[in-house]
Amino acid sequence: MGTLRVPDVPPSADQDCERLNKAFDGLGTDEEAIIWVLGSRNASQRRRIKDRYQQLYNESLIERLHSELSGDFAKAVILWTQDPPERDAKLAKDALKEKKKGIKHLEVIVEIACASSPHHLMAVRQAYCSLFDCSLEEDITSTVDMPLRKLLVGLVSSYRYDREVVDMVVAKSEAATLHEAIRTTQLDCDSVVWILCTRNVFQLKSTFDCYKQNYGNPIDQDIKGCVNRDLEALLKLVIWCIDSPEKHFAEVIGNSIIGLGTDEDSLTRAIVTRAEIDTMKIRGEYYNMYNTNLVNAVIGDTSGDYKNFLMALLGA
Amino acid sequence: MGTLRVPDVPPSADQDCERLNKAFDGLGTDEEAIIWVLGSRNASQRRRIKDRYQQLYNESLIERLHSELSGDFAKAVILWTQDPPERDAKLAKDALKEKKKGIKHLEVIVEIACASSPHHLMAVRQAYCSLFDCSLEEDITSTVDMPLRKLLVGLVSSYRYDREVVDMVVAKSEAATLHEAIRTTQLDCDSVVWILCTRNVFQLKSTFDCYKQNYGNPIDQDIKGCVNRDLEALLKLVIWCIDSPEKHFAEVIGNSIIGLGTDEDSLTRAIVTRAEIDTMKIRGEYYNMYNTNLVNAVIGDTSGDYKNFLMALLGA
Repeated sequence: MGTLRVPDVPPSADQDCERLNKAFDGLGTDEEAIIWVLGSRNASQRRRIKDRYQQLYNESLIERLHSELSGDFAKAVILWTQDPPERDAKLAKDALKEKKKGIKHLEVIVEIACASSPHHLMAVRQAYCSLFDCSLEEDITSTVDMPLRKLLVGLVSSYRYDREVVDMVVAKSEAATLHEAIRTTQLDCDSVVWILCTRNVFQLKSTFDCYKQNYGNPIDQDIKGCVNRDLEALLKLVIWCIDSPEKHFAEVIGNSIIGLGTDEDSLTRAIVTRAEIDTMKIRGEYYNMYNTNLVNAVIGDTSGDYKNFLMALLGA
Repeated sequence: MGTLRVPDVPPSADQDCERLNKAFDGLGTDEEAIIWVLGSRNASQRRRIKDRYQQLYNESLIERLHSELSGDFAKAVILWTQDPPERDAKLAKDALKEKKKGIKHLEVIVEIACASSPHHLMAVRQAYCSLFDCSLEEDITSTVDMPLRKLLVGLVSSYRYDREVVDMVVAKSEAATLHEAIRTTQLDCDSVVWILCTRNVFQLKSTFDCYKQNYGNPIDQDIKGCVNRDLEALLKLVIWCIDSPEKHFAEVIGNSIIGLGTDEDSLTRAIVTRAEIDTMKIRGEYYNMYNTNLVNAVIGDTSGDYKNFLMALLGA
């Protein structure tokens, strides 16, 4: 369950556009009005507002937001206003452009592939092709090094069955396959890739449960230290995004605000992409992990319009 | 270009349904009328007829066809009347159920993955999940043996960019990768799978051209005898389906009618699945390959309503 609060009887798209246009008008911008409108509309309402805005004012709403707003507030509002598949395709492209070491910048690709619906992943792949004249898989193949490449290509190519059908015999046998791969440190072998990239999420959760039952430790713990450090981190990420996305996103938010400075891009991404999905669960998990309230933690690390916008999405 | 002939001003779906219902009525069935209606309607018209038939007569058109028709004629008409993604999902499922040796039964899966549009492949994967409660990839992984499994999973998971964008540097470098894989008989290695499963069709055609230019032989010739015989056959099939699907389908039709007996299932599949895509080209290619006219060859090996229906689809 998300934390976005949509009015029971929302204004029409035309009324919202008018309100936004008024907020842009004249000297200065009425940021509060923008938060008030866009921060309480769901994806299909935002799409309608975007379409109507273009028709009414012959101008792209996204471009207008670009020119009116700035800094992290602008980034957050624009990310929120884009169509989710287009937004994620762009986030994936940006991730692949970064020539960083490690896997932190690839997190978003795993989130799209493992913590979104199969249908959304398909839509992201379509948007990626439309926007960038090549497939997401092609870009991964040409920019990500082995051994991460193999697993990532498999993950973004998946189209998992999306209902709860679990075969316990399969769960037991594939837990054994995973255990053997961990034991022999062959974690990028074909059979591991097939299990993680073709099975439905419910089946995989049962496989991970079986693993713990039969071999003593949670699988993400056993992976530690047994392979290439980046592959280890990627696999842990995949397992978390499948098994309990709320744990993963609570950690993303925690890492982005705890310690010196704030990683606003990660904080924004986690809240914007999950506000309509599971921010309620993420708030609970955050409390379990850090023994403190997520909303207060975000308030403590952000300010101004940016803070107010995140609060709107967090239903605070 | 297909050979299906649709009237400039087709009757309404209601009129077509009425005509079909009359053809089913009373003792015996008016097969000619069924051919006349369904054999000259495109996919979206057939979908509308199917929907309206259900509404008007509270009965599935497909089931009615099942009970009215028989033999190869029934199979062909029903295959033609199903929604293409559902039809192909069922063909793929049937293929995976067959516990045959070799790769002939897997042909249809390669056709769906390599000789259809990326959008159609996605729709087939969606239909497969809806119909069979698991993903196509899962079924391939659990029923097809190595080394075919790896390439097939990659192929059906692809979502290729669908416009003509070709990078000649990539073509040259990937032709070299393929050549090296052939030289070392490592044709199921990851890099070969990535090239064949992520690149757009135009890019791959250029890569195959480059291969021939730089290494002397067409790539499908060089593959011969260098690996496992099934993998060799699968790779040749993939290359043909990407490079010149019309050659592949001309061969399917040729193999199904030349020699003793007729393989009606393959003949039906080739004509039904391509009648709206490229049967015109297939007819030309058939002439090149066998020095005889495809339509006459089909007439010589089929009879009755089945023959008449195929002729309608072949525009003869």
